[in-house]
Amino acid sequence: MATKSELEAFFIHEFPQANFRIDEVGNKAATISIEITHAHLRPGGTVSGPTLMQMADAALYVAILGEIGLISLAVTTNLNINFLRKPSADGRLTAKCRLIKMGKSLAVGDVFLYSDHIEDPVAHATGTYSIPPK
Amino acid sequence: MATKSELEAFFIHEFPQANFRIDEVGNKAATISIEITHAHLRPGGTVSGPTLMQMADAALYVAILGEIGLISLAVTTNLNINFLRKPSADGRLTAKCRLIKMGKSLAVGDVFLYSDHIEDPVAHATGTYSIPPK
Amino acid sequence: MATKSELEAFFIHEFPQANFRIDEVGNKAATISIEITHAHLRPGGTVSGPTLMQMADAALYVAILGEIGLISLAVTTNLNINFLRKPSADGRLTAKCRLIKMGKSLAVGDVFLYSDHIEDPVAHATGTYSIPPK
Amino acid sequence: MATKSELEAFFIHEFPQANFRIDEVGNKAATISIEITHAHLRPGGTVSGPTLMQMADAALYVAILGEIGLISLAVTTNLNINFLRKPSADGRLTAKCRLIKMGKSLAVGDVFLYSDHIEDPVAHATGTYSIPPK
Repeated sequence: MATKSELEAFFIHEFPQANFRIDEVGNKAATISIEITHAHLRPGGTVSGPTLMQMADAALYVAILGEIGLISLAVTTNLNINFLRKPSADGRLTAKCRLIKMGKSLAVGDVFLYSDHIEDPVAHATGTYSIPPK
Repeated sequence: MATKSELEAFFIHEFPQANFRIDEVGNKAATISIEITHAHLRPGGTVSGPTLMQMADAALYVAILGEIGLISLAVTTNLNINFLRKPSADGRLTAKCRLIKMGKSLAVGDVFLYSDHIEDPVAHATGTYSIPPK
Repeated sequence: MATKSELEAFFIHEFPQANFRIDEVGNKAATISIEITHAHLRPGGTVSGPTLMQMADAALYVAILGEIGLISLAVTTNLNINFLRKPSADGRLTAKCRLIKMGKSLAVGDVFLYSDHIEDPVAHATGTYSIPPK
Repeated sequence: MATKSELEAFFIHEFPQANFRIDEVGNKAATISIEITHAHLRPGGTVSGPTLMQMADAALYVAILGEIGLISLAVTTNLNINFLRKPSADGRLTAKCRLIKMGKSLAVGDVFLYSDHIEDPVAHATGTYSIPPK
């Protein structure tokens, strides 16, 4: 298992382009967030779909590493996302992941994505990671 | 319907951060590609999942705009992606989309993603866009 | 909105082949269950995938009709299911649905499926229904 | 690898409730079909979603067994389906599967579903099977 501070150091070293904040991790769950900037928007003032997908995928990855430790080679095998509501064009975007299966070779989790100032989730994703044998 | 050159001008103006090339568009299909750079990679020398998701989503968008014209407010409602093989860390990544339904309010398409030098697809996605009423 | 007893009468009349029990419905949620019999099994003593998919789809339908009333023409547009653990070959299979979006034209929900005697969910699904205009 | 006649005998013996016909199998592909009867319909004269899901899942299973032989314990881990058009209430429903990955532990395929008398597909599915170690 990896702690929040171990995960923060890992992402700075291994994924310097990752720009999210780890808010919570542990107990088969993780919450991460980013500040929405102009680079995340698309015409109509909506946060782009890829930004939401990237946050969903990252929240799953953080939750899994929180359980199995700093194994950078775990890879996504499937991601399914439903876009539910128009996200806010400002404030933070938060992704809350819970693992619903943490097996030896596959982990599955779901993720709710929230915008500041909007009570209901703006998107929901389900994803599977393949975990390499030790 | 929008031509390849109209779509190129549209993306430069409306989505300046989009950095893909439109290779073909028309007949309910589109092919787009990008040159893979260090920014697209993750540890292990693999193209990141979000890069593949972004290309799948963009190929769907280009194919749809090729049918309905330059309607920037069409939005993704669902995307499902399976990651099949490790993509090349260099060369181009190509996304080939075919629309399997082009309705008045919903469009559905599938996308195969290919890496240079790898014959089989590296990922496969299916997505739905909601099309705003005229 | 439709009550549990209205929904029970509706399914007996309109879907006589539906053989599940409605355990709870209301507040953008529904729980339904069936007794597993030999007809639901496949080799290896596992409940078949289609049985789990059918229950997930039905739980979504019951939850939606609980909100919008007895509109039989609402139809599934997308269903995504992850099979997590081997279900029990006996006892009841229970599907718990929560709606995460209840819009005018689209409803989206997620469903956890449980087997008697197994604490963790055996499957998880996400689905979208299209709701016909009034 | 298993031939069409070996697969037909296998399904009669192991899955007597399976009532589809194997039209073609081999070369990482399979086509199966059933005659639509009243039992497959739901209100509105539409083939039920679970019938389409069951046929998509079965077409994947037949295509995989055509490659790896008669291994009944291969199980679905993920299925995603988009319902595209109202299927015919009579005639045959045909599911055409192509495998897009046939790995040692995971196989992924896509399936187009067709109704007699309708040119375009009525549904499209993507699924993953987990293959047990030998």
